[in-house]
Amino acid sequence: MTFLYKSDPVRGAVWAERFAQQLPELPFRIWPDVPDPRAVRYLAAWEPPADLATRFPNLEVLFSTGAGIDQFDFSVIPETLPVVRMVESGIVNGMVEYATLAVLSLHRDWSTYRQQQQEGRWEAHRVHPAGSRRVGVLGLGVLGRAVLERLGSFGFPCAGWSRSQQQIAGVECHAGAEGLTAFLARTDILICLLPLTDSTRGILCKPLFDQLPSGAALINVGRGAHLVQDDLLRALDEGQLSRAVLDVCEPEPLPPGHAFWTHPQVVLTPHIASMTQPETAVDAVIDNLRRHQQGLPMIGLVDRARGY
Amino acid sequence: MTFLYKSDPVRGAVWAERFAQQLPELPFRIWPDVPDPRAVRYLAAWEPPADLATRFPNLEVLFSTGAGIDQFDFSVIPETLPVVRMVESGIVNGMVEYATLAVLSLHRDWSTYRQQQQEGRWEAHRVHPAGSRRVGVLGLGVLGRAVLERLGSFGFPCAGWSRSQQQIAGVECHAGAEGLTAFLARTDILICLLPLTDSTRGILCKPLFDQLPSGAALINVGRGAHLVQDDLLRALDEGQLSRAVLDVCEPEPLPPGHAFWTHPQVVLTPHIASMTQPETAVDAVIDNLRRHQQGLPMIGLVDRARGY
Repeated sequence: MTFLYKSDPVRGAVWAERFAQQLPELPFRIWPDVPDPRAVRYLAAWEPPADLATRFPNLEVLFSTGAGIDQFDFSVIPETLPVVRMVESGIVNGMVEYATLAVLSLHRDWSTYRQQQQEGRWEAHRVHPAGSRRVGVLGLGVLGRAVLERLGSFGFPCAGWSRSQQQIAGVECHAGAEGLTAFLARTDILICLLPLTDSTRGILCKPLFDQLPSGAALINVGRGAHLVQDDLLRALDEGQLSRAVLDVCEPEPLPPGHAFWTHPQVVLTPHIASMTQPETAVDAVIDNLRRHQQGLPMIGLVDRARGY
Repeated sequence: MTFLYKSDPVRGAVWAERFAQQLPELPFRIWPDVPDPRAVRYLAAWEPPADLATRFPNLEVLFSTGAGIDQFDFSVIPETLPVVRMVESGIVNGMVEYATLAVLSLHRDWSTYRQQQQEGRWEAHRVHPAGSRRVGVLGLGVLGRAVLERLGSFGFPCAGWSRSQQQIAGVECHAGAEGLTAFLARTDILICLLPLTDSTRGILCKPLFDQLPSGAALINVGRGAHLVQDDLLRALDEGQLSRAVLDVCEPEPLPPGHAFWTHPQVVLTPHIASMTQPETAVDAVIDNLRRHQQGLPMIGLVDRARGY
């Protein structure tokens, strides 16, 4: 029985150390060091090998080393193999930090002041109370909920939208296609934290932007493919949107010469909003291994019909 | 009996409306509309007239319309006249927002990524856990405490320093000259929220910077005169400090051509970290008037010996 890790090797060293401490009875290997593929029962990977079904015939669980599983090619993953997303505190904390930073930078005109500094201009703009800046989060998973909770502590009126109706204290919850319009109409700063599925691909597009209040801002920390890039550029140029903070694009890295690099209303970061922290990630996986061995449901188990 | 307001007239209109609603029995005037100076019992001002002692012989209380009172010339203010700083939720919330934004922007390399965007460079840097980024606040008044409480929610190890020993849950509290060294030695991001007094003027200087860990960052949201500007420039150039976020300078506006405007490691904002919100400010003053009339201590009453 072997646990196989196939992802960044520097992080893998942290995994190896913690496995040795906490699960010494389970042999831990880092790809491509796999003396006996038939012994591999657990695989943690960002990109699993395409032949995993034949290469590892005794595989019991596939763990993603990231929060998303949209990088997996499910056509080559046996239907009966449990797939588990990474749900760990490092990802959550990083996303809460980034989303708070992005919202506050929009709320407090940070880009305007950077521009003024470059121009040598000392000019104060009115500070709007947080209570007048309505924040909305698309996607109410672990990340979306954590982001809303932190933003609520600043006094921003918070709303969320999800596929099925949710209830969160202090958050105005909307659901489904019929709830989207009301959610967008009251959202000054929109944060996308959806999973990437067939039904969310391209959701950030002109019809959606047009339902936001004029001058609203967008923060995309979901996936690049959620966004129709030309629609965003047009909405910025026409003033329907005032600013965008983008941590993800399609493709990544963003190609040289793309309009986002130089657009004065776009802040671009290279997919760094949140990363798994190896220490907390490996603890989350070990916890899930114990749950699996005890027949308990694993945290982050993917429902393939939903796509997340 | 008259309440006289001498500050920004746009905000004054909000004051007038709320006084009319909440204290209709007290005539409210906006400078320079003062038909009977002898009737003026209360003055709210950013810059009181130099002859206030003779001009308003029956003055009972002087309110500052800002959080600080260092703009007052106490040599022309009668010693027996109570002076009250502005303590209101708008100032506190604005400062918590700005300090959180500044800390997160340093913590998450926001300036580095803006620079990379300008250069068309897609390059991720490691996300450090908040638990490894030690934040320290100089000054444990209402603002310093509120900032520490919010930053603690992100998991930053928090410490504070004040003249006399304080106790704050979850905050490592240091005090006095003898406590400053230990406070600085553990502080990666230093926030100045001190009042400006004779003993804090120029406190942000080379000897202080040298006691911080190499590569520490500074956020000055106190007053420009807390900072010895040449010492900061030298500390940045020598690498003892990595970055500075400055919302205040001396003088303001910062003169054209000053090195801060163009320094790549300096973020400069035009004294906008926090402003009194007229709605909450007038409510705080009306509350204090009621306390004064009932013989209760006013919130924010200045101790002239301490200087704040």
